[in-house]
Amino acid sequence: MPGVLTLGEIVSRLGGRVAGDPGTRIRQVGSLERAAAGEITFLSGPKLRAKAAATHASAVILSQESEHLTALPRIVCDSPYLYFARVSQLFNPLSVQAPGVHASAVLGKDVKLAQGVSIGAGCVVGDGITIGDGSCLYPRAVVYPGCTLGQRVIVHSGAVIGADGFGIAQDEAGRWVKIPQIGTVRIGDDVEIGANTTIDRGSLDDTVIEEGVKLDNQIQIGHNCRIGAHTAMAGCVGVAGSADIGRHCTIGAAAMILGHLRIADHVQVSAATVIRRSIHKPGTYTGIFPSDDHASWARNTALVRHLAELADRVRKLEKEKKNA
Amino acid sequence: MPGVLTLGEIVSRLGGRVAGDPGTRIRQVGSLERAAAGEITFLSGPKLRAKAAATHASAVILSQESEHLTALPRIVCDSPYLYFARVSQLFNPLSVQAPGVHASAVLGKDVKLAQGVSIGAGCVVGDGITIGDGSCLYPRAVVYPGCTLGQRVIVHSGAVIGADGFGIAQDEAGRWVKIPQIGTVRIGDDVEIGANTTIDRGSLDDTVIEEGVKLDNQIQIGHNCRIGAHTAMAGCVGVAGSADIGRHCTIGAAAMILGHLRIADHVQVSAATVIRRSIHKPGTYTGIFPSDDHASWARNTALVRHLAELADRVRKLEKEKKNA
Amino acid sequence: MPGVLTLGEIVSRLGGRVAGDPGTRIRQVGSLERAAAGEITFLSGPKLRAKAAATHASAVILSQESEHLTALPRIVCDSPYLYFARVSQLFNPLSVQAPGVHASAVLGKDVKLAQGVSIGAGCVVGDGITIGDGSCLYPRAVVYPGCTLGQRVIVHSGAVIGADGFGIAQDEAGRWVKIPQIGTVRIGDDVEIGANTTIDRGSLDDTVIEEGVKLDNQIQIGHNCRIGAHTAMAGCVGVAGSADIGRHCTIGAAAMILGHLRIADHVQVSAATVIRRSIHKPGTYTGIFPSDDHASWARNTALVRHLAELADRVRKLEKEKKNA
Repeated sequence: MPGVLTLGEIVSRLGGRVAGDPGTRIRQVGSLERAAAGEITFLSGPKLRAKAAATHASAVILSQESEHLTALPRIVCDSPYLYFARVSQLFNPLSVQAPGVHASAVLGKDVKLAQGVSIGAGCVVGDGITIGDGSCLYPRAVVYPGCTLGQRVIVHSGAVIGADGFGIAQDEAGRWVKIPQIGTVRIGDDVEIGANTTIDRGSLDDTVIEEGVKLDNQIQIGHNCRIGAHTAMAGCVGVAGSADIGRHCTIGAAAMILGHLRIADHVQVSAATVIRRSIHKPGTYTGIFPSDDHASWARNTALVRHLAELADRVRKLEKEKKNA
Repeated sequence: MPGVLTLGEIVSRLGGRVAGDPGTRIRQVGSLERAAAGEITFLSGPKLRAKAAATHASAVILSQESEHLTALPRIVCDSPYLYFARVSQLFNPLSVQAPGVHASAVLGKDVKLAQGVSIGAGCVVGDGITIGDGSCLYPRAVVYPGCTLGQRVIVHSGAVIGADGFGIAQDEAGRWVKIPQIGTVRIGDDVEIGANTTIDRGSLDDTVIEEGVKLDNQIQIGHNCRIGAHTAMAGCVGVAGSADIGRHCTIGAAAMILGHLRIADHVQVSAATVIRRSIHKPGTYTGIFPSDDHASWARNTALVRHLAELADRVRKLEKEKKNA
Repeated sequence: MPGVLTLGEIVSRLGGRVAGDPGTRIRQVGSLERAAAGEITFLSGPKLRAKAAATHASAVILSQESEHLTALPRIVCDSPYLYFARVSQLFNPLSVQAPGVHASAVLGKDVKLAQGVSIGAGCVVGDGITIGDGSCLYPRAVVYPGCTLGQRVIVHSGAVIGADGFGIAQDEAGRWVKIPQIGTVRIGDDVEIGANTTIDRGSLDDTVIEEGVKLDNQIQIGHNCRIGAHTAMAGCVGVAGSADIGRHCTIGAAAMILGHLRIADHVQVSAATVIRRSIHKPGTYTGIFPSDDHASWARNTALVRHLAELADRVRKLEKEKKNA
């Protein structure tokens, strides 16, 4: 990581155009509200013009349409948020943990670690696991035997990869008979897995997380799922077993995808939405019950349970009207 | 585990009937789509007839009504999925971890481990815990002091058993006063607990998970709950404190059972359903807001908040009709 | 902890009034149903009068209005539940883990532990962390580098504090570019954090949990959030990034607060409610779709998707009426 870069040096690396002094020296990124001298911030849109006027940052990343909102030295570019991400990567490491295997980590037999892999304190990596170049497991991540991780995979603390899927069959007496889960989990390159997220091993075939997938914290991926490349899921999402989710999807926080469904590429599922049927067309899908003050909610909710009756009454009125 | 079994040998152990060559040699189970020679698969119903015709498996488990759907050697039985579970158990161990206590596990004082117990790497088993024959704790499971686990219990990585329940009382100034949680957790025989699932200790009495209960990943069981025998819960379910759930229930993924409720035996709760009242009769209960494309959702949702007004308008029309 | 206290001694410490023999000896608390001789229980309201009559407890804590419901020795006070919490604290330690750092815990560089801190087995405390007097980390808690914990903080097993927030920007090809998360987490005094709860570090500024906040299990707090003092959240709550939640709020189990929202002080959010807009006024807010037997649910749910049409039909009837 460089200690200090000028705006001119940043633009020569990442593109864009400097307005104001290209010699302005930057040593870190910061937020609009709290950036200090020597820091560069970004403006996501014209709504924040007041904050932009008040910032103590030394420079601002913004789009052409917002260029006039500040007199500070600035970098003008097409996608300020993306540009900011890249600037931040210039000043900050993507993972803070040094390569190597911590003394307290436990490695099974036949584990293959590529160059630059970092295994944090208290991690448990089971037998026969392969992990690609530059991947990082933060403290206390667990990978069950037989799983495969690609290159530059980041696994946060408490994540569990490859535990048994939930495969049970009911016997004649209503007791559950466990189905051995003999598949594994295969994780592609550049995947990030959040803290306490769980990804189950396949029951027969493998559970597959394709390259570039980003999973936030406390996500549950059931057995035999396939998550398509470059799909991102926010925290607390649940994906039931054997769901097949496309590429470039975004799944909002606490959404739930039921099992055995197929979701097309480029689908956006809104937060807290439950998907009960396959989705075959790109687009945004939403299903949240509207919240309200408790009294209004109670009044309207009672009627939801009698919607069929209400519709019947309207139908009757229409019929009488017609017959009148 | 046997290396290879013939269909005849399988049937002599598990019942059912062979159609085709009983000498067909099987060494593993596989999925309809990916099974290879030497593997046996199963057919859950006639919908999958095309896949059955294309499978490379050496044999198929199916019901009498589907028997004609393949010319492969097959085992005909009443419940193909259950039969398949039992066949898979013949070829695969139920837990992959060897008996014994891993060197990196931490055991408290007065821990009593029965025969064949397996404690994985990094597990922490607190003071005074008893664990029955053949139970298996996968890496990094934690059991707080004083809890009891029965025989053949499986606890997956990251599960936490016996942490304090959420017991707090508000004081005059609106600050929370912690109520010490002095109960424990008692877990019956043949229970399986998924990765990162949490089961809180009782506040005064114990939290009880009866025999044969199966809990998937990331489930939260609050303090003082009782989960009746042979009940199964899919991933991400939440059960609030002091809920009393019957035997042989199934709770779908991401369902939420509020506190202090009583659920009868043989109740099915659909995925993503919130149960706010006790359920006294067996049956299936559902409560999910329907998802839709975002624009349709927005239009209909706005009206949900005005249902009471809509009902009033219908009532008024009906009254006018009557008076006309 | 004292072995035994008389009712008189309890009242002299905590206030309230004894009715019956003040020399009654108490050695522990218990539930109304299961308390034994030598234990004191509490009566939360007159509904439980039958249980109060049948209890084997040696004494009961109750309010003046319930005083006549039992002839047992009793302590009369304004808030029986709060009083009970305080009595239980007299007999039971708030955390069961001894001070000191367990041999299997891993501490980074420049960690500052104040007096009486307890770090359980398998905990990982990263570089540069400060932890205040009397705080307790149960086994396998993880704190990432740079975070700060106040005094008397309790962190349960499996909790992860300070993992990277979910900050990603999409590039021109639809791939995700990680935004380094360079803030930390600051946790105030007297905070309790449940098992497997995750609190992400800030992206630029810090994530802040103010004093007296109580978080149950499996809660997810996104980056840059602020949770106001003395707010309590039940299990499985999700708070998306940059939400700013007020003081003295209560958030029910499995509720979800979307990102960048502002919630005022003294707001109650009901269980399983999704909050999509900022809340500016104190009060109780609810949004749960009503559950029902499956057939009724299916019938009514189908109509929810056609509410706009139903409203149109009512409007048409009203118009015709008017024109008639």
